[in-house]
Amino acid sequence: MLKGKDDFCEVPDLGSLKQEGKFRLVYMDYVSGKPVDSRVLEAMNPYHREIFGNPSSLHLLGDLPVEAVENARKAVADLIGAKDPKEIVFTSGATESNNLALKGVCFRNQNKGNHLIISAIEHISIINIAKYLEKFGFKTTSVGVDKYGLVNLDKLEKQIRPETLLISINYANNEIGTIEPIKEISKIAHDHNVLLHVDAVAAEGQIPIDVQKDGIDLLTLSSNDIYGPRGVGALYIKSGTMIEPIIQGGGQERGLRSGTENVPGIVGMGKAAEIAKKEMESDSARIQKMRDRIINTVLDTIDHSYLNGHPTLRLPNNAHFRFDYVEGEAILLGLNMRGIAVSTGSACAAKRLEPSHVLIATGLLKEEAHGSLELTLGKYNSEEDVDYLLESLPQVIDRLRKLSPLTPKEE
Amino acid sequence: MLKGKDDFCEVPDLGSLKQEGKFRLVYMDYVSGKPVDSRVLEAMNPYHREIFGNPSSLHLLGDLPVEAVENARKAVADLIGAKDPKEIVFTSGATESNNLALKGVCFRNQNKGNHLIISAIEHISIINIAKYLEKFGFKTTSVGVDKYGLVNLDKLEKQIRPETLLISINYANNEIGTIEPIKEISKIAHDHNVLLHVDAVAAEGQIPIDVQKDGIDLLTLSSNDIYGPRGVGALYIKSGTMIEPIIQGGGQERGLRSGTENVPGIVGMGKAAEIAKKEMESDSARIQKMRDRIINTVLDTIDHSYLNGHPTLRLPNNAHFRFDYVEGEAILLGLNMRGIAVSTGSACAAKRLEPSHVLIATGLLKEEAHGSLELTLGKYNSEEDVDYLLESLPQVIDRLRKLSPLTPKEE
Repeated sequence: MLKGKDDFCEVPDLGSLKQEGKFRLVYMDYVSGKPVDSRVLEAMNPYHREIFGNPSSLHLLGDLPVEAVENARKAVADLIGAKDPKEIVFTSGATESNNLALKGVCFRNQNKGNHLIISAIEHISIINIAKYLEKFGFKTTSVGVDKYGLVNLDKLEKQIRPETLLISINYANNEIGTIEPIKEISKIAHDHNVLLHVDAVAAEGQIPIDVQKDGIDLLTLSSNDIYGPRGVGALYIKSGTMIEPIIQGGGQERGLRSGTENVPGIVGMGKAAEIAKKEMESDSARIQKMRDRIINTVLDTIDHSYLNGHPTLRLPNNAHFRFDYVEGEAILLGLNMRGIAVSTGSACAAKRLEPSHVLIATGLLKEEAHGSLELTLGKYNSEEDVDYLLESLPQVIDRLRKLSPLTPKEE
Repeated sequence: MLKGKDDFCEVPDLGSLKQEGKFRLVYMDYVSGKPVDSRVLEAMNPYHREIFGNPSSLHLLGDLPVEAVENARKAVADLIGAKDPKEIVFTSGATESNNLALKGVCFRNQNKGNHLIISAIEHISIINIAKYLEKFGFKTTSVGVDKYGLVNLDKLEKQIRPETLLISINYANNEIGTIEPIKEISKIAHDHNVLLHVDAVAAEGQIPIDVQKDGIDLLTLSSNDIYGPRGVGALYIKSGTMIEPIIQGGGQERGLRSGTENVPGIVGMGKAAEIAKKEMESDSARIQKMRDRIINTVLDTIDHSYLNGHPTLRLPNNAHFRFDYVEGEAILLGLNMRGIAVSTGSACAAKRLEPSHVLIATGLLKEEAHGSLELTLGKYNSEEDVDYLLESLPQVIDRLRKLSPLTPKEE
């Protein structure tokens, strides 16, 4: 078994991937998946075999889970500054939350309008839900972004029509890390009586989110993205916002999400939210320092390297580069051989090998987008991880450039 | 801390519920929720913090979860005799599986028809999904059952129309435990070119299910009902059966269920399926013996007691009674005070305090339905649990009858 940072992960034998020479397991793909905080697992523990009753049961074993679920609801509400825990509905994850938000608003309000606006850099789930809604007569406008990935506010406002029901924009982008001007977007939406849904999956637990100050009507959260368990998520639905459920059944979650509550998962998400609220500031500061060292060193020491996304309005854990004359997939595989796990874009779209729609929306050419590499740090990364990355990455790129017919001969 | 059977559960201090005298914690509400098998938790363990990668990631940490998910898929396929693991789609639970099955078939085939048939004793989720589909122009016929809860096959066949797309019947009923003649129902459905969906949540892990021999096109499974974790379920979709997804996104589960895979949950369900396949026969035999002792003793020793459901075609863990002159809720509370957790009907409908639609469908009067009590045993019950129940139940009923104005004076 290889060991990473003590507090962190063990992975089974990597077999052929393990080389004779220097090898260190470094995970820099936190956007795709996170290890669960051990304190979260501990909090979940009693709910698997001890306090396992169904919250809907009338007997003594049904009451304790109810209390646990409500405490978790409060912790999640607190993390995002929601006024009332009742505004939090637990789901099976961010994708379901996005489905509930968009379909929920559209189907509930189809007598009022049939139009929604999303940005060109939304997560694939938002894009595909919007496409699905077209079958039912809804129309979607996709608003462009500038070269940094910032939504163009003028264009956004101009796209609003009398029949517009909803604007859906990510709090920060999951690929390039750009943080959107949510408060300004909210003002535009509300000036026109349009609801605002925000996918906060990439941002949650990294930067403060305040649904009241930000003026958000619906907010998608994932549990794993704050080091909670998989298979749980939440949707914040501001009091008074009417939506239609997408899963019918026993009427759990005040009728908005039927299905027996995943009590251990919900408890885990609650604990993760509690930890995030307490430790986010210090974790993010430490992560951002490491991230800045990566960005500065890469741009300084690797020729023809560029930063994608915004130089300052970006998530503290995100470093997204492009390199001339090399393919992102080749860099990924090269780093992989050295034990470094990274991404070339959204994990959800990775296996399609298409250029990222996010990078294309920022104006990159297909070949530029293909030369991109996404590093996302997390709270279990160490300065030694950064050292190892900064030693390995130039070697990988140098080797690939030597092999590439695209590399200019002069160099 | 009170202790139940050693292998089993600890619950926190029950405070005022704990009496001076004899007290034993006995859980006989397995239909509402089950403790997770400790071997399942152990199997899940590495997937929280060690093998935590996103199956969609291209790097080394993305491959191991893929393998784990596929092994789990095979284990679930094996439990129900599916031909190909690809026929298993993982969901967030049984309610979502039921939604996917019914909406998936209806929306996909709306050019072929607009009619579905369910039984009058389906789970509330099936009933509510059918109601929801009416908004989109689909019609539902509910077929009645006999006094034992068996679906009337003649009536079922007569309800089939040229525009019928789907018949949805539970493998066994979750309240009264009656096992339906699925093979015969399948023959009727297929003779008329209609698909058959079966909700197997109450039956799975208790009696053998073979989707091929039974002739099932879609089958809903829950993980917790086979002692797996909450928040996971599966839908079996026979090869060639076309359905439309209900959650759009990154295209996971071959496009049928988007959302990052809940790898630990899926691994847990796989392990639970593996254990169920191996141990179901001996567990069910032991449980049925205890259950029969309960049924025989109650009917023999408590006056005016009756068994609801079928005398032989019933799930091995189910004992469902009605008692004249007493309310089920009062019995539940009386048993609760003695540490025995039971149910008066489906947990999903328990808090509404309405008479069970299942009991009403079997021909019981409202007051008879209200006098009913559901005991569902599980693999952690012991003969001592049965002793304690059989000692407590007559006392509780006797006391309630003495207080009840309905009790005839002569008695």
